[in-house]
Order: sequence, then C-alpha cells, then structure tokens
Amino acid sequence: MNSFISLLTDFGLCDEYVGVMKGVIASINPHANVIDICHEIDPQNIIQAAYMLWFSHAYFPRQTVHVSVVDPGVGTDRHIIALKANNYFFLAPDNGILTHIINNYECLSVRLTASQYYLSQVSSTFHGRDIFAPVAAHLSTGLNLNQLGETIPASQLVKLLDIYPKKKNDQFVGKVIMIDRFGNLITNISQKDLNQFIDRPLTIWMNNISIQGISNNYMQVRKGELLAIIGSKGLLEISINCGNASLELGVEIGCHILVELMV
Amino acid sequence: MNSFISLLTDFGLCDEYVGVMKGVIASINPHANVIDICHEIDPQNIIQAAYMLWFSHAYFPRQTVHVSVVDPGVGTDRHIIALKANNYFFLAPDNGILTHIINNYECLSVRLTASQYYLSQVSSTFHGRDIFAPVAAHLSTGLNLNQLGETIPASQLVKLLDIYPKKKNDQFVGKVIMIDRFGNLITNISQKDLNQFIDRPLTIWMNNISIQGISNNYMQVRKGELLAIIGSKGLLEISINCGNASLELGVEIGCHILVELMV
Amino acid sequence: MNSFISLLTDFGLCDEYVGVMKGVIASINPHANVIDICHEIDPQNIIQAAYMLWFSHAYFPRQTVHVSVVDPGVGTDRHIIALKANNYFFLAPDNGILTHIINNYECLSVRLTASQYYLSQVSSTFHGRDIFAPVAAHLSTGLNLNQLGETIPASQLVKLLDIYPKKKNDQFVGKVIMIDRFGNLITNISQKDLNQFIDRPLTIWMNNISIQGISNNYMQVRKGELLAIIGSKGLLEISINCGNASLELGVEIGCHILVELMV
Repeated sequence: MNSFISLLTDFGLCDEYVGVMKGVIASINPHANVIDICHEIDPQNIIQAAYMLWFSHAYFPRQTVHVSVVDPGVGTDRHIIALKANNYFFLAPDNGILTHIINNYECLSVRLTASQYYLSQVSSTFHGRDIFAPVAAHLSTGLNLNQLGETIPASQLVKLLDIYPKKKNDQFVGKVIMIDRFGNLITNISQKDLNQFIDRPLTIWMNNISIQGISNNYMQVRKGELLAIIGSKGLLEISINCGNASLELGVEIGCHILVELMV
Repeated sequence: MNSFISLLTDFGLCDEYVGVMKGVIASINPHANVIDICHEIDPQNIIQAAYMLWFSHAYFPRQTVHVSVVDPGVGTDRHIIALKANNYFFLAPDNGILTHIINNYECLSVRLTASQYYLSQVSSTFHGRDIFAPVAAHLSTGLNLNQLGETIPASQLVKLLDIYPKKKNDQFVGKVIMIDRFGNLITNISQKDLNQFIDRPLTIWMNNISIQGISNNYMQVRKGELLAIIGSKGLLEISINCGNASLELGVEIGCHILVELMV
Repeated sequence: MNSFISLLTDFGLCDEYVGVMKGVIASINPHANVIDICHEIDPQNIIQAAYMLWFSHAYFPRQTVHVSVVDPGVGTDRHIIALKANNYFFLAPDNGILTHIINNYECLSVRLTASQYYLSQVSSTFHGRDIFAPVAAHLSTGLNLNQLGETIPASQLVKLLDIYPKKKNDQFVGKVIMIDRFGNLITNISQKDLNQFIDRPLTIWMNNISIQGISNNYMQVRKGELLAIIGSKGLLEISINCGNASLELGVEIGCHILVELMV
C-alpha cells in the first residue's frame, strides 16, 4: 500500500484550500500520511514548482504520491497527468511542472479521464480539491495508474524549455532559479557542470560583482561577506554569511550568472 | 472512534501556539489525526472564521472534531460550546463562529463545564491550549457530548447578524466576505441566489466597475482581464485572469456588490 | 517506542526545507508522528528558539524527540548534541538553543559522531535534512542515546548568558524576549519572580509609559487600552486589548521593562 502523499501548491496558507484538500484525502483514505512540501510557490509560477518538485521528491518514501498543483489553466481543457517514475507517483497538470521528472526518468504516464475517482461535483476553479486530492487518495490506496485514464507517451507531455545552463569553452552561463528564505541565490549550474573545472581557479560573475572560487561552508568568509558555495541541492549558490544576498545585492530570480575558468 | 481533529484559528504560524495545541492533543490521544484548516484568520475576525468553517467542514471525514479558536473574549465569562451537527463535532467560543452551522443544521449543543477534561492549569489568555485542545482530544476518543457540560438550545447561542445578501426585485445586493491568496474577491451571493436569473443577462457592479455575465473559467477572458465566476464555494467571485483583483482594483472585505438583471 | 518528533527551525515555509526533512523522517520511520512547533524563528535567532523550545516542550507526549535547527554554524566544526532530560529527547546544534533545558533539568548528553545514522551524503549547508532528520527518525524508533556518539557533561555545552531578569530591592529589571502575532510583548519576568509582590501594588515601566497593576484578562481594560497580564507562559506580558502593543507602542525585542513595588 502506498500511504504517503506529498503536496506542492501555490495555494498559500492564508486560505482553507490546503486544509480542505487534506480533508478530502482523509475522507477517502484515512490512513494516508500527507506531507506538505510547500504551498508558497509564487502564484502560477510553474518553473519554481518544477524545480522544487525535482529537488524534493527523492527524499520521500518510495511509492509516495507527489501531488503538484500550480494550475493557471484550471477549468480549461488542459490535461491532468498521473505518472510513475523512479518508484514514485506524480499527479500534476500537463503544464511543465513535471519537466525535470520526464527529462531524467523513464516514465509511465496517463491522462486522467476516470471521473469516478473525482468528487461528484467538480468546480471550474479548484481541481486541487475536486480532482487532485481524491485521485491522490485513491492512488495511495493502491489503485493502478491504468485505471485512471489513457496512456500517453511522456514525449507528448508539455515541457519547460531553456532551463539548463549554456556552456561556451571555459564558461558556463546560467541563471538564478530560486531564492530561499535566507536570501540564498540558487542557480541552475550544478556541481556536475563544474566537475570538469575541479581544482582549477574559478571566477563567478553576477551583475558587476565577482566572486573568486567556491567555499566549503558559510563560515569560510567573514560575517556579511559574499561567497559561492555548492548548496544542498547540488547547485551553485551565492550567499552572504549570516546575511541575505538577495536583499543586499538586489538580485531577483532570472538574474544571469557566469562561471569562468581563470586563465 | 472519531480520530480526526481540524484546527481553525487566528494564531498564525510565527509562534508556537498551534504546535503546542497539537502537543496537548497528542498527549491525550496519540492516535488523533490533526489537520490544519487555516491559522491565518485576521486577529479576532470572527466573521471570516465563521465563513471558512462553513465552507470547509463538510470535506472532512464524518465525526471529525472541528476546533475553531478566534476568541477575543478569552478569559472572560463567555461560554465555550461543543456542538454536534451533520455528523460532525464543533468546538468554539460562543461568539458567532458557529452561525452558519446553527443556521443550516439541526444541532445538539452543550456549554462546557466539565473541567476535568481541561489541562490542570488554565491560563486566562490561551484556552486553545488549556481547554480546546484537551477537550477536542477527549471528544476524538469517543467521549459523549453530554459528558462535557450542560445542554443549551442552539437558539440561545450567539449568532452573527446581517450576513446574507439582500434581494430587491431584479437585484441582489451583497458584499465581499473573503479575499484569497490570489486576490479573488469572494462574495456572499451564492449560485442558489442567482438560480432564478439562469440564462438571463446579468450585470455585476462593484464600485463604479461593471462586469457583463458570469464566466465558466478564468481563461474565458484574456490575461489581465476582469471576470465574474461561480467559485469553488458555490459563491459569486470577482477575479482577474492570472492577476490579483483585490490589489489591482483596491477592493477590500466589506465592499458592496450589486447583481442586476438586465432589462 | 518513541514515535513523536517535533520540529523547531528558522527555515520558514516558503521553501521545501521542512517538507524534505519530513520526507527523510518518513523514509526511516514511517510510523513517526511529526509535529511542527514553529518554522518562523527569525533567521539565526538562537535566543528566540531557546525560549520557544523551553515554553513548548513539556506539552508534548513523553519521549517526544524535540528537534531544533537554528544553525548559523552549519558546515563548520560546531557539534550537534543529542540530550535526554525530563523524559524528552532533544537534538540541536551546540550553540545555546538548549540553555533553558540544561539550566532546569538533569541531562544526559552526547555529541553526535555515529555517521551511520546520517544520510549517506552530508551537505555543508543543510544538516536539517542530512543529519537532524535521520537521527531524529532513528531516535524515534528507540535507538539509544549512547549509540549516537560520545557522552559529554552538560556543563561543557554552550549556553546563553544574561537571560534572566535582575532584581534590585523592590524592582525587577527584565526585557522583552518575544513578540507574538497579536503584538503581545512577552518579557522574561515570570510570575514566580513577582510572587513576593503578591497583593501589593505594582507599577510596570516600559520606555516612558507606566501601567498600574496586573490584569486577570484582556477584557478588564477597554478596547484599545494597555494592560499587563501574566500570559500563558507564566511570564509578564504587555498587551493592548483587541490591539497590537508592539506596533502601537513601537516596541521591539530587547526593550527593557521595569517592575516596581509602589511605596
């Protein structure tokens, strides 16, 4: 039995939306264990949700049903996808949230059509409650993916484009993809990207600021000083020790980052 | 056994108040499943809590104990009510939070007096921890309502007044009762109110802005455009597709809405 | 079996950090019940976390594993402490978070060294996920404290200094240590401190404002008026009935409070 369900949405916690989804899940599978990944995705920000799902999903027990609802197309004819990959289940609108999952794993996917697993009344604005929650609850009781709809090849699913850093000779050009509570600037340049530069002197450029080399921990620079570090997602991050790099540098999501091998 | 407990408070999540309530519940009934409806009710806003409880409660498993603590009168002689209605339990201060429940269901209600179910020390400022949490935990183990206090007729409980829209001929005059994270303006005018106008052309007025007709989904208008829609609560909502109607129109809770049948 | 785990961090809820910790815990002990105390500790504010842990921990079931991660030294050679006291387990960086626990209870403590209980890859920036969560999960399955590392006398652990109010003759000089969502100013002066003044007239001074005596509940003064009250933590608090004392008086954490016996 698959009894864990994770939730990732842009619903926030100021409304009853998340609580109601949990009520619906409990009504169908009282033994489901629901874990919140995050509900503070910027409204309708599919890119942010796609990254967060990617960096979180593998820390959960196998068979967890990962439900992601960032869904500007709710109520239109966009599809909802149930997908199995890497021994996890994923449930999301077909709008790009699953991009990293699809790009990295072999996937079995279906388009939801089996409305007998939805709530009996489906609104046009809150499929989180009316479709995602009940279907996730049914999946968590062991329902087979194929019972939910018609198989669709993963190649036909919607994917985000232009999400990887670009390499030119001895340079990587990436961008800031997330900013966390501490103001750490998380880039899309991975440790793996930088592996070829191992033990060679690097300069990191952002706007007109440069940082020499990559630190091993925050305390390697003085309080208030800037550093580059490989963060907990295996990605290059720009931080200020005991400070907030985003606020202090005025850097926002999308800002370009250049990593350059020093000659 | 009733093992689900929902929590709805104005305690926020920046303090330990909610966590401590859950600790108290777990100490009394380690098998209770606690689900947060919301803790971001505006401080002391009983009206907002009353609506949120009403729109949420029925999505939870039967026998759930719904605990609502928005309680400006904490520590005074206001009563605390335990109530059974529609196969759910409700626990709340007698200050109007239960208005919609009382107005819509047949209710059994008691005023709490059985202090053996409270924590041994009751503070004058945090009955959420000292009374609501332990009593909810006991209810969730199957304790009978009558063991908690003396029966009181629902007609004697405190109720909010002036909460329904007013009908005059071919008009409904209502107001904005909630604004959600997306800036959707949720009114107290229901689909049922509008049913008599079905398939007839409507104009919705708010301040000096008018909207023609009711859309079926957000995408029916262009990005950034205003629409009226029957939202997931079965209520008329004013929204901006991919935008924030509250911020962009400067509309706050309490704003009047007029729905007019076009002649 | 110890199956409750509490979490107290400065991770906030806008990122996936807390959700990922819960995923890790569930992967190791699917039967663990995780309860959030609070994740909105001001970034790196060890003092605030120390107080919140102290005022919360005893409301949880015995054997709960209390995990506190406010950890500016993450990735350096600061130690991580597992401690048993008052029939609870505590897991925290050795940076002062445990001060009140150590000052008030007899403690058994170890420095973590048993890395077989960590995730196989330990990052230098997110020990919450890589060390605290898995070790807490193992503790919650009944692992013995001694299996986690080497015993260290509690007297050698890092403690916060200068945290108690000072008494001079008929005066107590304390300070504001926490401000809650309602703007209540929570001081470090306890009911116990004031017990010697019982039934004698007091004046409380804060900046140039004075309050006469201590109220029994908020409603004892009119709406919008200032009062002093013994709050739910057993500490002197300054509040405004149905208002926000912090905002309206412009008082912040650290502000001095003087309690004076009137002659």
